[in-house]
Amino acid sequence: MIIDCHGHYTTTPPQHQGFRDAQLAALADPALSGPDPASISDDEIRESIEGNQLRILRERGGDFMIFSPKASGMEHHVPDPATAVAWARASNDLIARVTGLFPEHFAGVCQLPQTPGGALSDVVAELRRCVETLGFVGCNLNPDPSGGFWTSPPLTDPYWFPVYEAMVELDVPAMVHVSSSCNPNFHALGAHYLNADTSVFMQFLQSDLFERFPTLRFVIPHGGGAVPYHWGRYRGLAVRLGRPDPATLLDNVFFDTCVYHQPGIDLLLRVIPARNVLFASEMLGAVRGADPETGVAWDDTLRYLDAAGLSAADREQVVEQNARRVYPRLDALLTAEGR
Amino acid sequence: MIIDCHGHYTTTPPQHQGFRDAQLAALADPALSGPDPASISDDEIRESIEGNQLRILRERGGDFMIFSPKASGMEHHVPDPATAVAWARASNDLIARVTGLFPEHFAGVCQLPQTPGGALSDVVAELRRCVETLGFVGCNLNPDPSGGFWTSPPLTDPYWFPVYEAMVELDVPAMVHVSSSCNPNFHALGAHYLNADTSVFMQFLQSDLFERFPTLRFVIPHGGGAVPYHWGRYRGLAVRLGRPDPATLLDNVFFDTCVYHQPGIDLLLRVIPARNVLFASEMLGAVRGADPETGVAWDDTLRYLDAAGLSAADREQVVEQNARRVYPRLDALLTAEGR
Repeated sequence: MIIDCHGHYTTTPPQHQGFRDAQLAALADPALSGPDPASISDDEIRESIEGNQLRILRERGGDFMIFSPKASGMEHHVPDPATAVAWARASNDLIARVTGLFPEHFAGVCQLPQTPGGALSDVVAELRRCVETLGFVGCNLNPDPSGGFWTSPPLTDPYWFPVYEAMVELDVPAMVHVSSSCNPNFHALGAHYLNADTSVFMQFLQSDLFERFPTLRFVIPHGGGAVPYHWGRYRGLAVRLGRPDPATLLDNVFFDTCVYHQPGIDLLLRVIPARNVLFASEMLGAVRGADPETGVAWDDTLRYLDAAGLSAADREQVVEQNARRVYPRLDALLTAEGR
Repeated sequence: MIIDCHGHYTTTPPQHQGFRDAQLAALADPALSGPDPASISDDEIRESIEGNQLRILRERGGDFMIFSPKASGMEHHVPDPATAVAWARASNDLIARVTGLFPEHFAGVCQLPQTPGGALSDVVAELRRCVETLGFVGCNLNPDPSGGFWTSPPLTDPYWFPVYEAMVELDVPAMVHVSSSCNPNFHALGAHYLNADTSVFMQFLQSDLFERFPTLRFVIPHGGGAVPYHWGRYRGLAVRLGRPDPATLLDNVFFDTCVYHQPGIDLLLRVIPARNVLFASEMLGAVRGADPETGVAWDDTLRYLDAAGLSAADREQVVEQNARRVYPRLDALLTAEGR
């Protein structure tokens, strides 16, 4: 089977955004009361999925998608903790309804109620709720809740350890994923996302985080930002800094295939071992539509993958086995269904 | 001939750093007076170059290097304008002494006296001095003088236009180059440099800067950060944003070859037209020493280039003709020497 490890619910029924708008309005005007999450019917959810992610997944030959709330909508830069908790819960509850309606096609990954520099107790609580109660298989962790100002400590700082302790205990990985950019220097999709991927990998290279947490696992999306393209730079820097070769990180760090052209996918698979690459499209995500020159949808990454000349065994790792290994709770769900 | 467009004077005689240290000490303690630039003999400069950049350039078959002050040493985050001016002048004067001692091997690119959010009149004045008086052929422009907090407007903002007007008038390009990182999230060499390259390209893609300045030219170093690896992403984003294809930027934007492994160079040359790629090593720069597995120096990018299977005509563009076209004052210098 083919598992896409990186899909976002970017097509929620519009009243979900209405709830968010009302939240922000209440923050701006204390006379307003905090809203309740939107009322959305099962049919509305079915329609929003069947015509979009599920249709495209099937059309392209995919079977299953690891699904999380819209990344740019997480908006962790809004500093009010209660607002963050209510927004994350509402967004995650919608993901849970999708996985409940389409258990054969979707498993959940949660948004965490992060705020810039905020305490992490709410984050850990929501992670536990999503995994233990809603059956989610992972989380998205934002290394820059400020939204482009990078005011939090690096992901290797003890500040983050409470989250890691919960991840290890629950045996779930995190995808490193920033949200919207409030800094005009960084286009969210064209710079901020990729910069975060690059920066966090270098943070890992500088630290002994995985000695302390040997089973902690991160998926770095968007093909690892700039990292595979500059793998020689990281190898050389590791020597210069007296650090182990970056290959030693590959027990804990994985890359997805959200790279939207053939040369990029070819480089990724040439540089990074197949056991560390997870098939993903991010659809419906950063890019929409098709290359006018070829007619191939930008984010139809399975096309690039199938043209990359992988052995059958390596391809099976990339499209299925790695996801089942990195997300053991997904493997358990699928195994229970006899898949 | 083989022109390396990206070398830094990272091997200055130690009294130059002593001058910098005294500058910073005077800023910290108003009782101290501002120091004078260090006294350095011609022999000291010769020795610092002949045993390092010039030796390595020759050993690897190179002929010429476009040479600028140490990038991480520019330290534009120090906010005092007078300090920035004195530091840039001293650093550029040293580059001018190198080009005076070795005119057959080096041409100068200047450090600009930028400060976070500071006025650009000093920047323009130093650019003019370096080009008109010292014979420099280009400049390094830092899109983030804050050193990792990105508090300045994007490079497409009118804030920067005075610099661009001078660049156009003088017919010199800028290499986009940040300096040290004061933000622990960003390792300077492993994240901040690459993030800047990526971010600025996306800024260009979002704007009409080159309609306003049709002859303005930028070299984006380090192989363009993440950009060539994600070229399909940029093409797709351009469609989504209603912007022209990123290929339309290639009259004004060029990439160097500071990518330190064969797969990265292969991707760069597969994706970016040969006329937009300038040979460079950045030595002595981010990486030092050789890959223990192959014995090849990490930054011996000519080795990768020569193994990339370019046609002879394309190789000549990359190693010489593009540099002469992008840096017309370099071409004039070389032509005057009959080269």
